[in-house]
Parts: sequence; structure tokens; C-alpha cells
Amino acid sequence: MNFKEHVISTIKNKNSAVCVGLDVEPGKIPAVLKNEKNPVLKFNQEIIAATKEYTAAYKPNLAFYEQTGIKGLECFEKTLEFMGGDVIKIADAKRGDIGNTSKKYAHAFFEHFSCDAVTVSPYMGEDSITPFLEKEDKGVFILALTSNKGSFDFQMQKMADGRYLYEFVIEKINSWNAKKNCGLVVGATHPELFEGIRKLAPDLPYLIPGIGAQGGDLENTVKYGFVKNDVLSLVNSSRAIIFASDGPDFAERAGEEARKLRDQINKCLK
Amino acid sequence: MNFKEHVISTIKNKNSAVCVGLDVEPGKIPAVLKNEKNPVLKFNQEIIAATKEYTAAYKPNLAFYEQTGIKGLECFEKTLEFMGGDVIKIADAKRGDIGNTSKKYAHAFFEHFSCDAVTVSPYMGEDSITPFLEKEDKGVFILALTSNKGSFDFQMQKMADGRYLYEFVIEKINSWNAKKNCGLVVGATHPELFEGIRKLAPDLPYLIPGIGAQGGDLENTVKYGFVKNDVLSLVNSSRAIIFASDGPDFAERAGEEARKLRDQINKCLK
Repeated sequence: MNFKEHVISTIKNKNSAVCVGLDVEPGKIPAVLKNEKNPVLKFNQEIIAATKEYTAAYKPNLAFYEQTGIKGLECFEKTLEFMGGDVIKIADAKRGDIGNTSKKYAHAFFEHFSCDAVTVSPYMGEDSITPFLEKEDKGVFILALTSNKGSFDFQMQKMADGRYLYEFVIEKINSWNAKKNCGLVVGATHPELFEGIRKLAPDLPYLIPGIGAQGGDLENTVKYGFVKNDVLSLVNSSRAIIFASDGPDFAERAGEEARKLRDQINKCLK
Repeated sequence: MNFKEHVISTIKNKNSAVCVGLDVEPGKIPAVLKNEKNPVLKFNQEIIAATKEYTAAYKPNLAFYEQTGIKGLECFEKTLEFMGGDVIKIADAKRGDIGNTSKKYAHAFFEHFSCDAVTVSPYMGEDSITPFLEKEDKGVFILALTSNKGSFDFQMQKMADGRYLYEFVIEKINSWNAKKNCGLVVGATHPELFEGIRKLAPDLPYLIPGIGAQGGDLENTVKYGFVKNDVLSLVNSSRAIIFASDGPDFAERAGEEARKLRDQINKCLK
């Protein structure tokens, strides 16, 4: 099964296109977990247990783990182990380097940590991406149009042929997709551009951040960002789900928020 | 002392613009170290001890450490500790994310691992970079024109105003340099473009990969990439130095190669 098929079947099986971003601030862990041996790991485990029914994918962002060094990476590893096999495990790492070096990153995330997918940055071009694409069952979400203000600095600048840089990048990505394991990162803060993006890349799964704390527009995202029959997009929410409550009910409330997002997406899809 | 001053004074004190890339393949460790408890760490320590006299900076690339997970990150940490204080410690990480997340990466590399500088990718724009620039003594080498073939895919594409994307990126970087702690990554495989790049960014330190195994042109790199009075560039060599020999003389040979590169650069500077 190639990565695209894996995304489609997981979304169908879970009846959910929700991706939960496990971007855990140690300072925001609920007081009830403060005496745990590893509060961040325990937090992740409780969040995963409470949200898994409503969730197709989890996306821990490496920055939040690297900030505490080895201890954080241990937590990243154990969090991945806890997820089990029926969700898509996405390492949000935004890596990318010369070919020889990207190969090591691909090994790190796909072999060592057993992730299903990784996010990468396109700036260094084809040979920085292809080492991640060697196995059809391992996926790569390439930054195309991100959700932040800085997306205007380069991604939304016009090229000599009149296209935006992000459109130019997307066309290149289409040409790298022989094994059906490329995807795009497209931010929900640009809903007016989704229709055009879906035309450029009708066949790619999208990972869509920017809903929730960043203020993205869910309805237009689903209207234009999804391929309805195949539900070929994952909508990520991080803070709005995992930090829905800082009380003893934090996991329960996270579960409710994940269920709510799943239902909102499914409603928009009808 | 801001980062630019730190680069200049280190190069002057060491009389060297050499950066040694510690991109260590566990499979390439000399047989003589195979029975060490931690062969990669021991290798790095011996390489550092043998090259330090001739070296202004060390640049471990994170991919080579992450590929073995926690064990690799431990080795990265201990390698940094071993370097001591009279060299510039550059984490070659090519990170970059939305502002809130880049802040965590900045903490990871500058606070947790005590690096002096980090490499970052510009694709996500200003708010992905500024969190790395908060402290004037911590530096950021931003990918401008990389040494790999993929640099032609996007970096060397023309924008609507006739400039190449990498030129457009460099102009933006100039505007982020209020604290004199920005630098550029510029590959030695594009020597014909160095003169123009130095005109665009006369005031930035460069980190220059691509010499050695990648075939970059040292003479033109020094001729056009350096600001002669200030020697405002670091020339990186990885494989050609650290894997100069796989015999018991590996460290001695690495020292010779580092010295040779230092002397070649200094000769070109005269």
C-alpha cells in the first residue's frame, strides 16, 4: 500500500480527517500531572488515549521535544510507540539537506523512529527531497504554502513566469510523486487560494495546519482543500485540542475537541 | 560581542577560516576505534583534538546524529562539550518553523546545547527566522544558495523583478540583521556567483560548504567570497578532513588536511 492509499484508508476507517498536533509545552502541563515521573509523556499518553477514536493522525513537532534535548527525544520516541498502528504518525520536522544528508534524516524518522511520514522544506530542491521518497509506504509532506505571516515573504512572491513561488514548488512536487508518497503542507489561513491549489495538485494528500489558535477558516478549507470522495486531506489542530483544559479533565476535554473537529469536518464534507 | 564580531575575532585568533564538518557515518569509523564504548564520540574527540589548532569552527550536522536517535543525540551533546570555548560551534540543523515553534528550536540549540550558531531554512519567511535572532551573540546562517544540484530548482529561478530567488532571499536577510547576527550559507559550487553575492551582502559572515568531496572551487571562493581585511567567511570541509584516512593515523591525517586547507585559504587571501 502506498502512502496515498494509507492516508485514504485511515481516514475512511476512522471516519475522521483529524490530525492532532502534539506540540507540548512542558510549562502548560496540567497541575494534576506535575508529580508524574515524566509529565510530558504521561500527558501525551492520556491525550492519545482520549482522542484516538476521533483521530486519523498524530503530528508531534520535533521542536517541542528537542528543546529539552535527550530527555525530550526519549519522550518523542515513547509517544510514537504509544500511538499504535491504526493512526498515521507524522514527524513534523521540516527537515531537508543535501542528498547524502537527507538520507540520514529519512533513516532517522522512517527507520529509527518508525514514523509513517515527515514534513520537509523544499528550498534545497529535488535531491534534498528524493531520499525521503524511496519507500512507497513512507510519506513526505512538503511545505508549499504555510500558515504563518512569513508565507508572504517568499512563498507568495511572483516568479518570472507570473506564478507564485508556492505554485512553482507544487508543480515540481507533482513531478516527484512517482511512488504516490508526496503530500503538501497547505495552511488553512489562505482559504481563498485552496481552490487553485487543489487544481494544481488534485492527486496529493494535504496536511493542513492553521485551524484553531492560528485562526484558519475550516469551512472553506474543507470546501476547496478536500477531494470529497477520497477525503484526501488531514486537518491539524494542536493547541485548541491538547490544551482545551488545564484541569484534571484535560484529556476528556481534548477528546471532546477532537470529536467536535471531526464532526465539523464531516458536516462540511456533506 | 555580537556574532559577527565573534566570527571575526575567532578567525583572527586562530589565523584560520576553516570549519570542520563533523558529519560522522558510524559505518566509516576507523577499525582501530571499533572496540570503544562509543566509537563515534571517541572519533569526534580525536578529530577535534587533532584539528583544533587549525580550525575556527566545528559544524556537526544533526542528521548524522539523529539517525541513531537518543544515542546519537547524546554523542552530539558530548561532542559539543569537548570542543571547548575558543571555536565557533555551529549546529547544522537547517531548521525553521512558525514563530512559536522556531522559538523552541532556538532554545534547543542555543540554550540546551549551548551552540553559538545554527543553520536555518528561509522558506517560511521572517517570523520563522526572528526567534533565532533574539540574542546578538547567537548567530544564524540562513540558506541562501546551497551547494547541491537542487539549488537550481528554486534558489536559481528568476523572480518577477528579474532577480534570482536567492538574491531576493539575501536582500530580506539584510533587513533582519539589526543585531549583526545573521549569516549566509553559500555553496562553493557556485564560484561564478560569489562576486555578485558579496556585493549584495557585504556585511554578512558566510558559511561556505561544497569544498572537497562536492568539488567546489577554493580559489574563486576566497577571491570573491571573503572580505579580505575581516576574513568574514568560514570554509567548511567535512569528509575530506575527517575521513582522510581510515587507518590508525586517521586523526593525524585529519589534522594535516585541516592545516592544509587553512594554509590554502590563507595563501589565497594574500
